[in-house]
Amino acid sequence: MSQQCGNSRIAGCSFSVHPMTDQFVEYIKGSLKETDTSNVWMDTDEVTTTVRGEIEHVFDVTRAVFLRIAKTGVHTAFNATYSIGCPGDSAGDQYTGDIGEPANGLHEVKQHTSAKFSLYPMGGGDYMEVIYREIDRMKEKGIDVSAVHYATKLSGDVNDTFHGLEDVFRETERSGSSHTVMTVTMSANSPSQKEEQS
Amino acid sequence: MSQQCGNSRIAGCSFSVHPMTDQFVEYIKGSLKETDTSNVWMDTDEVTTTVRGEIEHVFDVTRAVFLRIAKTGVHTAFNATYSIGCPGDSAGDQYTGDIGEPANGLHEVKQHTSAKFSLYPMGGGDYMEVIYREIDRMKEKGIDVSAVHYATKLSGDVNDTFHGLEDVFRETERSGSSHTVMTVTMSANSPSQKEEQS
Ligand SMILES: [Ca+2]
Repeated sequence: MSQQCGNSRIAGCSFSVHPMTDQFVEYIKGSLKETDTSNVWMDTDEVTTTVRGEIEHVFDVTRAVFLRIAKTGVHTAFNATYSIGCPGDSAGDQYTGDIGEPANGLHEVKQHTSAKFSLYPMGGGDYMEVIYREIDRMKEKGIDVSAVHYATKLSGDVNDTFHGLEDVFRETERSGSSHTVMTVTMSANSPSQKEEQS
Repeated sequence: MSQQCGNSRIAGCSFSVHPMTDQFVEYIKGSLKETDTSNVWMDTDEVTTTVRGEIEHVFDVTRAVFLRIAKTGVHTAFNATYSIGCPGDSAGDQYTGDIGEPANGLHEVKQHTSAKFSLYPMGGGDYMEVIYREIDRMKEKGIDVSAVHYATKLSGDVNDTFHGLEDVFRETERSGSSHTVMTVTMSANSPSQKEEQS
């Protein structure tokens, strides 16, 4: 298949964020501009934005792009495919400078989200126990977890949700899965949810 | 993992459609209401809509929900995960009445889209040749095909694109993949694309 993947140990994410408003261009461009992307390689086309780098930076950047828009109160959807270890390698497209600490902050922002994620560990590994453990950790943080068709549904704080997803992804890779893919769909400020939000 | 899948041979799709306008609720509700869903099981929550049934009906319904909104000219994004043969079976949630022909029409509508798709055949099968053949068929229909990180990019008519994706999905399953997942991200009427569209 004509599909480029990554250098084996470079994590990456192809994602899109959808502010459901006439001013969507300003929201998206504003958020991308404010986000610190100095530790990753990033490219945006008319379908998705692709970010590549270390796992912690890929999650930091995607979380920040979504959260900067969601915290304004506008109904926002986020769709992402996180990937690491894809066998169809491609040269380049990685950040090669000094790697710093995740720089996007926003950890104090409280924002409710409903999300669904699916994990596809395609390269072996002893991941089932890992996944159950990480899901239990999410529950301990106060995230509601339930089973739905084709995914696991999460409901809770955006920062807690992103950190939980990063842990699931990282620990699945650490368990020995040589190619791990995780898809995530998130929604914030949905009109059908507003009554239940804090 | 707490993740429900389907009865082995029931196809399904978890999808969301995002009209980037203040009137997003009217667009989404209107499109879902106008779409003929009499041949599938369908459920909508605040994150995604899930549809389950035969492959041709799952593609017909998802194509129609997206196209009804896209053809109005509003910038619209579509995200979907198609799945068949997921090992974690769940009872029920399938349409059990008489199955008719796909009923959503709209085949005469001309609408440009840019899309990215990724195919994850997770249950064996002799699929590589199948995928190359189906990609060649898409090119013959006039769809531009290119390799990008984590996906294959398609650019062309919405109906041609959906039919091409349905063929890739169906033929991968037929090749012997016991669990096939395909993710799709589409965009129509993107401001950055408008100049090139017919
Ligand atoms: Ca308006």
